[in-house]
Amino acid sequence: MEQGLIQVYTGDGKGKTTAAMGLAVRALGNNFKVKILQFFKSELSGEVAPLKKLGAEITLCNGQDKPTWTMNSEEEKILIHDTKLAWEIFKQSLKTQEYDLIILDEANHALNREYISKKELLEALNQPHKSEIVFTGRNAPQWLMDRADLVTEMKMHKHPYQKGIPARIGIEK
Amino acid sequence: MEQGLIQVYTGDGKGKTTAAMGLAVRALGNNFKVKILQFFKSELSGEVAPLKKLGAEITLCNGQDKPTWTMNSEEEKILIHDTKLAWEIFKQSLKTQEYDLIILDEANHALNREYISKKELLEALNQPHKSEIVFTGRNAPQWLMDRADLVTEMKMHKHPYQKGIPARIGIEK
Repeated sequence: MEQGLIQVYTGDGKGKTTAAMGLAVRALGNNFKVKILQFFKSELSGEVAPLKKLGAEITLCNGQDKPTWTMNSEEEKILIHDTKLAWEIFKQSLKTQEYDLIILDEANHALNREYISKKELLEALNQPHKSEIVFTGRNAPQWLMDRADLVTEMKMHKHPYQKGIPARIGIEK
Repeated sequence: MEQGLIQVYTGDGKGKTTAAMGLAVRALGNNFKVKILQFFKSELSGEVAPLKKLGAEITLCNGQDKPTWTMNSEEEKILIHDTKLAWEIFKQSLKTQEYDLIILDEANHALNREYISKKELLEALNQPHKSEIVFTGRNAPQWLMDRADLVTEMKMHKHPYQKGIPARIGIEK
């Protein structure tokens, strides 16, 4: 069994989650088995239904229907709890040797906030696994980028919200 | 009718085409109408079949089954011809006001090589159209980035081919 590689998409530009979703589509097109864990997301983004239709398994890991930056400390505690559960799902999924591609969408935030420990993550990644593992989100920790095989930084040069255009359904969400 | 915005994904990092394909999935999930023109591509990448299944219209614009950098001048002439045909398809598609999203995958190369003229392109973009238009590919010309509403540069920090790992089916192609 060939060891799956680690990919990281980070930076402040648009295209991190969408690149991961594009990877999922390509993998599904090759009859690969795909698992997606969306950290911090509670609402259904536009890509969820079509990816499910194509056969991807998708888990929304945040049980609370509000953005993380509006949470009080009680709500953050629940979020941390949910993140740890999601982390369990990831570790078990990796061990099944069933998935060709596992996407940990927005997990970089969880790592950055230390909801998941560096030690635990590196241990999991160092175990034999066939899955290609993709991390997305701003502020990927340096140690993750050091460990990864592929790192792309999405660098924002221009974005419509700079002109006051809010996130649009079907395009940004 | 609100004027559709222009997005550009460029740079040397992985994730340009995949980000565009992820956008397509999100748009299709919102029942948007999606058209994809793949410039310079002749073979079916892994993402084509699943995107078609979800309802996207996809046109492979390169009739020759070989990479552009291996072409002799005769073959390049045919490529330029095909690119001009693809360009016609784009202009007509834009005018139909039928598509919410039009992806011009790898078109930045065609612009960079001046297979399509700056004047013609800017004229087309300045006409009233509802379509969000996405350009991908390295070396996007500066005038296109100036005209665009969103520009993300995919910056490569690390890539497996630096370790001698060739493009893998289901992941890179």
